[in-house]
Amino acid sequence: MSALSDLLAFQRETEALSQIMGRLGWDQETMMPRGAALQRGEEMAALEGVLHARRTDPRVGAWLDSAEATSPAEAAQLRLIAQSYRRACRVPGDLAAEIARVTSVAQGKWAAARKDDDLASFLPVLGQVIALRRTEAAALAEAGDPYDALLEGYEPGITGAEIAALFDRMRPGLVDLRGRLADAPDAPVLSGHFPAQAQRDLAREVAEAFGYDLSRGRIDEAVHPFSSGSHNDVRITTRIDTSDPLGCIFSTIHEVGHAGYEQNIAQDYGLSILGQGVSMGVHESQSRIYENQLGRSPAFCQWLYGRMRDHFGPLSVTTPEDFARAVNRVAAGYIRTEADEVHYNLHIMLRFDLERALIRGDLVLGDLEAAWNDRFAADFGLAVDKPSNGVLQDVHWPVGLFGYFPTYSLGNVYAGCLYDAMRAGLPDLDDRLAGGDVAAALGWLRDNLQRHGGLRPPRETIAHATGATVSEGPLLGYLGAKYEALYGL
Amino acid sequence: MSALSDLLAFQRETEALSQIMGRLGWDQETMMPRGAALQRGEEMAALEGVLHARRTDPRVGAWLDSAEATSPAEAAQLRLIAQSYRRACRVPGDLAAEIARVTSVAQGKWAAARKDDDLASFLPVLGQVIALRRTEAAALAEAGDPYDALLEGYEPGITGAEIAALFDRMRPGLVDLRGRLADAPDAPVLSGHFPAQAQRDLAREVAEAFGYDLSRGRIDEAVHPFSSGSHNDVRITTRIDTSDPLGCIFSTIHEVGHAGYEQNIAQDYGLSILGQGVSMGVHESQSRIYENQLGRSPAFCQWLYGRMRDHFGPLSVTTPEDFARAVNRVAAGYIRTEADEVHYNLHIMLRFDLERALIRGDLVLGDLEAAWNDRFAADFGLAVDKPSNGVLQDVHWPVGLFGYFPTYSLGNVYAGCLYDAMRAGLPDLDDRLAGGDVAAALGWLRDNLQRHGGLRPPRETIAHATGATVSEGPLLGYLGAKYEALYGL
Repeated sequence: MSALSDLLAFQRETEALSQIMGRLGWDQETMMPRGAALQRGEEMAALEGVLHARRTDPRVGAWLDSAEATSPAEAAQLRLIAQSYRRACRVPGDLAAEIARVTSVAQGKWAAARKDDDLASFLPVLGQVIALRRTEAAALAEAGDPYDALLEGYEPGITGAEIAALFDRMRPGLVDLRGRLADAPDAPVLSGHFPAQAQRDLAREVAEAFGYDLSRGRIDEAVHPFSSGSHNDVRITTRIDTSDPLGCIFSTIHEVGHAGYEQNIAQDYGLSILGQGVSMGVHESQSRIYENQLGRSPAFCQWLYGRMRDHFGPLSVTTPEDFARAVNRVAAGYIRTEADEVHYNLHIMLRFDLERALIRGDLVLGDLEAAWNDRFAADFGLAVDKPSNGVLQDVHWPVGLFGYFPTYSLGNVYAGCLYDAMRAGLPDLDDRLAGGDVAAALGWLRDNLQRHGGLRPPRETIAHATGATVSEGPLLGYLGAKYEALYGL
Repeated sequence: MSALSDLLAFQRETEALSQIMGRLGWDQETMMPRGAALQRGEEMAALEGVLHARRTDPRVGAWLDSAEATSPAEAAQLRLIAQSYRRACRVPGDLAAEIARVTSVAQGKWAAARKDDDLASFLPVLGQVIALRRTEAAALAEAGDPYDALLEGYEPGITGAEIAALFDRMRPGLVDLRGRLADAPDAPVLSGHFPAQAQRDLAREVAEAFGYDLSRGRIDEAVHPFSSGSHNDVRITTRIDTSDPLGCIFSTIHEVGHAGYEQNIAQDYGLSILGQGVSMGVHESQSRIYENQLGRSPAFCQWLYGRMRDHFGPLSVTTPEDFARAVNRVAAGYIRTEADEVHYNLHIMLRFDLERALIRGDLVLGDLEAAWNDRFAADFGLAVDKPSNGVLQDVHWPVGLFGYFPTYSLGNVYAGCLYDAMRAGLPDLDDRLAGGDVAAALGWLRDNLQRHGGLRPPRETIAHATGATVSEGPLLGYLGAKYEALYGL
């Protein structure tokens, strides 16, 4: 055996164990009896210990020193394994365990604080989380920028400064569009009662239209929709609200975007470090382009309108055009997860600036709420009325996910780039979508992006698919054109 | 940290990882998409590798050398960990991997051979399985009996010679009872259509009557019913046949017996080596006493008859007494899993004698089928018509489970002992069961047996609960009295 084959065999087992961790997470949110929660915590901690030991195993370092790649795929694997090994080795085991412990406590305290709108009770533990993550960031960054070191864990190869510059270029256009939309006539609202079973049936039909392979996946229900797993076991969840079928349908399409990416990676890459989405941002680009550019397009809404009437009978909106406007309703609101495509990125920019300042030490915790509320008023034209509508709304910071938020907007930017290139390659795309035919769009994404898995770094992955460097232009152009057409701005 | 606390902390993580393996097995049989099968095989093999490395970790040996127990529970843990460590260390890792590989192949070939009734095509791979298990048995046994070494893996502390003597004492009485029942009038048969949802509802009701804690468990459907997991996450499956509701109800009660044992072990023992059923035989004693002595008792059948009519409407049997006879129908048949309480043990004794002779080298593979069929004719009065009704019917030998079969009958013997002592302690048991009240019987089992988990070796566990040494007398007495009362022999 060579160092390369030893290393790849070892990594394959690590990937298999990592898949098991994903399955436990899925089970916890869908099937696990409630009384098993503490036990599950111990089970996952034991497996996390095994994974951490493997990721920092000195043999990995030795193999990396002497392994030689003979193909681009092998070279990419060595690059990614080396990144993972160096990162894992920089964080002391007891610091990782302490972060796991404190964020677990913090998540519970956050849920209670959000329920009671009691920010003061939560700030001390949030301070602990931030301090621990800053310590980790310092260990990861060595002499570099601590925020960049955290960001690297979610979106390798991009810096906070690059994202700040990108967002600075995007923000004026989005604020302007937001302002023009505030003056547009109200969009129609889809109202009525939509039985749960009909929603399940339609969600399954839409998932299959979007290429979800149910022989290698399954759909269940959970409080927060998610996708889980890689290769040949990729499961999604959706949620059902009998007064709002659009939530079920579009969260299903969104999760099918994540799941389809995983399912469409080349089978040869399965259970290797290449066999999973390359970054959070690229992953989000797939869920967003499925959900927004394709699923919420006026063309696809024509087809969906017919399927909605078949499943639910006559609707409160009576034309495909009004249905498309209902699907693409724009309204400034406090809550990120309920935001439309225009406001969504403004929510992210706010969080990015604040979390970067917190990690770099430029913002103290006592000033966080005021900073949030001031910025929100400036960008959304609304005064935050309570912490659960402001700084307490997201689970990310309580569980230590600093550096994660910007990947959502990067996903939108990447999706804009991909959609631009896809339209150029598929001139009859709208006609196809209007007939419910998503296959050509999916084939374009699979061939140009999804099948390559982790072969190239994130922005190279997008550039390879589109033939152009990543920029915000296509996304802004798409949003302007879409809303102008829908609302006649 | 002392050697003892280090060892127990290490063992706790091993138990947690072992629980994860159980959860993957459950998922595979209930939820997993079919296209994920190969991937799941790799995931489970990777986790098995981790578990094997932990079970043979040299640190365990060193800790065992210097750890000192300060309580009976600690002493029991040291004894069980030492047994597990010595056993695991005796089997070379490549032999264990080869057994896993060959039995996986053999299971597929067996399923095809059984379907086609083609024994000849299966014998070569069965020969490989036997050869590998004999090699393993020789490694485990050192100078001792190889069959005993395999048996020890399922029922620690008993020898093949002891079981042979026990079965020799049981067989004449069972053959005699079987003969007398062959001449009894035919029992009534429950026929009709029994809707799946009503079966599910009744199964859940009966599971809860038998004390199954659904806040720490769940019921799903699978081809072969099973129970899985320990401590606070113990799940069961059942099966639904709309022409046979008794299959669903009694397999549910059976699995609740296994699951209830796990759920009722002292919480303090959770995720320790004491926190699971002590042996296959004792586990089976719980499933059997729940299913047979309690569930199939004429007294409980009175209550169940009423619940059946509530769920399904009028039945083809029209009195509680006829319902009890239908539930306890006796008929000689080829298939072990369909056997009644009398014939069941005869099926086991046949398999025990043959598998012991195979492992000890006293029976060659070419003579196996003739030996099976001769013995079957002698004990059952029937000629085996095809291999799928004979030597090919069970999955156990194809997957290498030599030494497992006798634990089923040991379970029946233990259940007989427990039921005898329980009746002595609960003089009003039948009155309670006739009203659907199983709580007193369950409390007796929990207090006298289940809560102790692995504290004592198997037969001591039964003796501690009953105050008497284990013997076949109570089981034979119970069977004779039950069938004489039902059929007026």
